[in-house]
Amino acid sequence: VEVRDWTGRFAAEAVGVVRPRSVAEVAQALASGYAVTTRGGNTGLVGGAVPATSRPTLMLDTTLLTGMGPVDDRSGQVTVGAGVPLAQVQAHAEAAGWTYGIDLAARDSATIGGTVATNAGGIRVVRYGMTRAQVVGVQAVLADGSVVDEARGLLKDNTGYSLSGLLCGSEGTLGVITAVRLALHRPPRAPSLGVVPVPSLDAALDVVAAVRRTGAELLAAEVVDAASLALLGESVRGWRLFIEVADGGAAEGLGALPDDAEVGLDAAARRRLWAVREGMTELWGRAAAQAGTVVQKYDVSVPMVGLDPFVAHMRGLLGDRVGVFGHVADGNLHLEVVDPDREWDEEVLTLVARAGGSVSAEHGIGVAKRPWLGLTRSAAEIAAMRAIKAALDPRGILNPGVLLDP
Amino acid sequence: VEVRDWTGRFAAEAVGVVRPRSVAEVAQALASGYAVTTRGGNTGLVGGAVPATSRPTLMLDTTLLTGMGPVDDRSGQVTVGAGVPLAQVQAHAEAAGWTYGIDLAARDSATIGGTVATNAGGIRVVRYGMTRAQVVGVQAVLADGSVVDEARGLLKDNTGYSLSGLLCGSEGTLGVITAVRLALHRPPRAPSLGVVPVPSLDAALDVVAAVRRTGAELLAAEVVDAASLALLGESVRGWRLFIEVADGGAAEGLGALPDDAEVGLDAAARRRLWAVREGMTELWGRAAAQAGTVVQKYDVSVPMVGLDPFVAHMRGLLGDRVGVFGHVADGNLHLEVVDPDREWDEEVLTLVARAGGSVSAEHGIGVAKRPWLGLTRSAAEIAAMRAIKAALDPRGILNPGVLLDP
Repeated sequence: VEVRDWTGRFAAEAVGVVRPRSVAEVAQALASGYAVTTRGGNTGLVGGAVPATSRPTLMLDTTLLTGMGPVDDRSGQVTVGAGVPLAQVQAHAEAAGWTYGIDLAARDSATIGGTVATNAGGIRVVRYGMTRAQVVGVQAVLADGSVVDEARGLLKDNTGYSLSGLLCGSEGTLGVITAVRLALHRPPRAPSLGVVPVPSLDAALDVVAAVRRTGAELLAAEVVDAASLALLGESVRGWRLFIEVADGGAAEGLGALPDDAEVGLDAAARRRLWAVREGMTELWGRAAAQAGTVVQKYDVSVPMVGLDPFVAHMRGLLGDRVGVFGHVADGNLHLEVVDPDREWDEEVLTLVARAGGSVSAEHGIGVAKRPWLGLTRSAAEIAAMRAIKAALDPRGILNPGVLLDP
Repeated sequence: VEVRDWTGRFAAEAVGVVRPRSVAEVAQALASGYAVTTRGGNTGLVGGAVPATSRPTLMLDTTLLTGMGPVDDRSGQVTVGAGVPLAQVQAHAEAAGWTYGIDLAARDSATIGGTVATNAGGIRVVRYGMTRAQVVGVQAVLADGSVVDEARGLLKDNTGYSLSGLLCGSEGTLGVITAVRLALHRPPRAPSLGVVPVPSLDAALDVVAAVRRTGAELLAAEVVDAASLALLGESVRGWRLFIEVADGGAAEGLGALPDDAEVGLDAAARRRLWAVREGMTELWGRAAAQAGTVVQKYDVSVPMVGLDPFVAHMRGLLGDRVGVFGHVADGNLHLEVVDPDREWDEEVLTLVARAGGSVSAEHGIGVAKRPWLGLTRSAAEIAAMRAIKAALDPRGILNPGVLLDP
């Protein structure tokens, strides 16, 4: 069967697709003799869920692992099957009076297992951390069919290595995640949004710092550049900063915003503005399609002090072929390059490396960024990762071709 | 030279003690041909920093790795040498207008490297998580002398496995941590303390849940039992719950406390009450010395619903030979057993296992809990850990005898 990722950039043949309903059926697939590529909601951006090897490969689709336990009101925890969509976990938590710390635009399709396997980020990282920080423990089937289970609901358990911390972000190369135990938070009170025009990312960070100094609970700090807003027909200079805080905010947090900030927005206006931010990926996708190409996507982080110089270098390189938006308070920018004529991976990612940054802040390596792993990680680090991979998957059957494999 | 842990329970001969001042000197020690046991502030409770092998072993003391960078006000991060005491990190953060999420009684001696190597917990876990949640990245020297460095200050970096997450909690068996990059928090506003007599741990958890439902920011929820308070000459029934929230609390969080709670305490009263909670370990140590023995210490976690039944079973077993205190909202209890006549490890830890709990919630395995690792972790999990250990330390030179070694 042909397997294709949602962006259409990655495609391959698989010998078949299995949809296990239990840990035992996952172990059975791993004993099949085939290599196994695991797929959740097929929303990844680096081609990590498409077979990337010439070996005969079985697609393991986790979407039928859909068990979901009750929210434990005392611990604020819940156990969820790997195949449950993120939005369903969010709704389940909210119905019980809690909130899940991760939110991202692909919430309706992305599975919780996929978000854990890739250590997903999104717009709430500035408040709650990345997915690894939400995971109390993971249940997973290892390459040899054995089951590790740290999803038993203990908030604290210092009995040996954190296998969950290792599996989280391993992109399916060390085990197949079958269920996760998640820590939830009490929902923030009365979130309110401010929208601020800023001339630079430095200026955006100054605004964020001023808001934080008030002691307000910062929920999100997102930027969108003029090139992206121009696609919506808006003519602005510099950047637009979206900043969200809890607890009304007008009195304290958002009171620290400059005079030209828009605050006191009603719910409809807030939704409309967030839709702008969330629509960016699709917007640039359409722009690329009109130009007869696909977007060249980069998801990079750079130390805070280096953000503006990095953007200036990139604009010098690409001019108006690049759009920039992202999570400014995490030093994490998404770049969308539209150029039908050539690829820019080497130039863009070399700029990132020179700035001391990461070639993948939150999307992972998959196959798309594999050639560039060495720009961010040292030979010693990659050797350590390969040693761990060889130890846990000596036959190399889990997601071959993804992340580390040559 | 003779090496002894601070409790006096563990002692061994080492061929010598080295105090490296740099990554290169750490690598040199690892190339010495000896096994290497790493020690920070010598405040551990499970004997993990005393040679536990018959092989000639070098003590590697990290206390001269004392570099400390400035707090980056934009990211709220700081890079700290492994040998810096926890209290110094806390003071450094506070001087810059931030706070570090970990606090524990041994703060003046415990090194930050030791707290990361053991994934230390303490009284702020309910608010900020354990040490792993504070660690942005670790710099460490691996057994082969190579250096991994995830302490470069990127908040987000999804380029391969989290070696930091693995090293954190590995008790010196996978690498020698030389520096860490930590994420700080803005300090909570106006912390206030309530002290509540409660008849059971269930009742304590109900109080915690009521306070949380107000939306108040919970900073700590600690319990001390009547047997412990009796050592201070106080005659009470049941438990005393210490609950701390941010933001004044009287109006909301602490307003949810029952009528017999003490609230509105001044700073001196708060300090005195925290000193009671923090003095518990030494208090039981003195009680044991008077009885001509040493304390048998257990640091266990149990799923929330099983806390009271577990305590009842344990009291049935031990009567007034056991004192209990700990972090009730984490399901984490510290048990101190004073019995000159016999050891209780097997009975106590079997009760923990039957309750689905962990034989080490925050203190780690070291050598003291090594025989009981299999009560909490499955054979598959221990096999996976051993495979990782063999991959990263094939000569078995790092902390032999600790955690996993037979």
